[in-house]
Amino acid sequence: MMNYIQSSRNSTIKEIKALHLKKNREAEGLYFVEGIRFVKDAVDNGQEIVKVIMSDKLESLNGGKELIDRVAAVGADCFVVNEKVFKEISDTQTPQGIMAVLKKREFKLNNVIEQGSAIVILDSLQDPGNVGTIIRTSDAANISAVFMTKGCVDLFSPKVLRSTMGSVFHIPIFEGQNIKEIAGQLKKAGYRIIASHLSGKNNYYEENLSGKIVLVIGNEANGISDETAELSDSLVKIPMPGRAESLNAAVAASIMIYETVRQKTK
Amino acid sequence: MMNYIQSSRNSTIKEIKALHLKKNREAEGLYFVEGIRFVKDAVDNGQEIVKVIMSDKLESLNGGKELIDRVAAVGADCFVVNEKVFKEISDTQTPQGIMAVLKKREFKLNNVIEQGSAIVILDSLQDPGNVGTIIRTSDAANISAVFMTKGCVDLFSPKVLRSTMGSVFHIPIFEGQNIKEIAGQLKKAGYRIIASHLSGKNNYYEENLSGKIVLVIGNEANGISDETAELSDSLVKIPMPGRAESLNAAVAASIMIYETVRQKTK
Repeated sequence: MMNYIQSSRNSTIKEIKALHLKKNREAEGLYFVEGIRFVKDAVDNGQEIVKVIMSDKLESLNGGKELIDRVAAVGADCFVVNEKVFKEISDTQTPQGIMAVLKKREFKLNNVIEQGSAIVILDSLQDPGNVGTIIRTSDAANISAVFMTKGCVDLFSPKVLRSTMGSVFHIPIFEGQNIKEIAGQLKKAGYRIIASHLSGKNNYYEENLSGKIVLVIGNEANGISDETAELSDSLVKIPMPGRAESLNAAVAASIMIYETVRQKTK
Repeated sequence: MMNYIQSSRNSTIKEIKALHLKKNREAEGLYFVEGIRFVKDAVDNGQEIVKVIMSDKLESLNGGKELIDRVAAVGADCFVVNEKVFKEISDTQTPQGIMAVLKKREFKLNNVIEQGSAIVILDSLQDPGNVGTIIRTSDAANISAVFMTKGCVDLFSPKVLRSTMGSVFHIPIFEGQNIKEIAGQLKKAGYRIIASHLSGKNNYYEENLSGKIVLVIGNEANGISDETAELSDSLVKIPMPGRAESLNAAVAASIMIYETVRQKTK
């Protein structure tokens, strides 16, 4: 179904503008993704598409026509707006002219914990690029799930989503977690909790990371909290033989995540 | 020496505005860094400071007074401007009110090649955050030097500098390199050139990375060029057992860089 919207006072347009705010995304259980590649990924990965909004210039773009056909084929409600209106709802400076409103997925915690192997917990990470990049690396490394604590930046903010490069559709992600509760549950299920900490005794590669393990990644400025350190089975460090005092949080996480890949294939 | 500038038409102000452009940084051999931490790092690391510009509000900031004294102690030419003028020369949205103009350092290529162990080459990397982050990781991992090809984003752009988190002062970096020439020179000096490539045969951790080696990191969108692949002694891959098709370039580089650390300490 194709609908034409002329005015930015239209209720659909207002609804999408509202989804720029976290509180509305949470209240509705919805979010949006933007751009030809990202919307195509959503369709390819069987996401539940509530509606698609496109500009009247989309068809002339490379890949635009094919995507319109794909979107129509899965029966999504489509709305066409002019470029000016599209700019108002877009999160990017040079919008490609397509956006999909998606339903947040829900995963079964128990299944993931039962069947999982390596799991990543993000504890109060603030930088959207870091969170998205860690999700991308986790996906590449076949991590079973990513848990985000309440203190993290919102997974469904456009910047986080963009940095995942589509991995948000591939891997189970649980938001709004309480670190103590989830760590307790994972420990009961036989996982060892490993956190990176400056005072860690072993280097990360001296730790056995091949079984049921949880890697806890701490906040960019402060690392993991004392509470998290206490509930961990092991604190590990990433050695820094050079002169830098710290690593980027996504880099530190990715180095440890890939050590699980190395150990599993050895 | 403390000088007061009232007008944004002052020649020092114009000079600094000019340094926002790469061509002027290249013509003058100068660049600037901003913020209390970054300027302090420049002083601590003995960088050649051409001049320091500060806003009249700096003194009231945490660490501001101490830094003014430190800067004065090393005999730097200081200029005080009002906040409005400072905003005009700043690259940040909420400037802290201090900026140092620095002379680009020059390193001796032959010394670095002779004494070096692991070296990183960035081949046409475009994203400032990636380049800065890789320099930071290289510094942490005690990489001997970073070479940047002509096609890379400018090392001295404010975004790259910020992402290095001060590592730009710690590690020798050579810009504007020709990949064929520098790789040839390194091979002659006994280095093995290792590049990451989707068609790589070995996983990166199956390669001996403990001797005199060069890691070549390719462009974000296209990876390494065919030319670079040909001149490499070995192409390695980072396995991706999950569903993501690629890794962030800084993440991929950092994973390989840290494998050199792991192998050296084993």
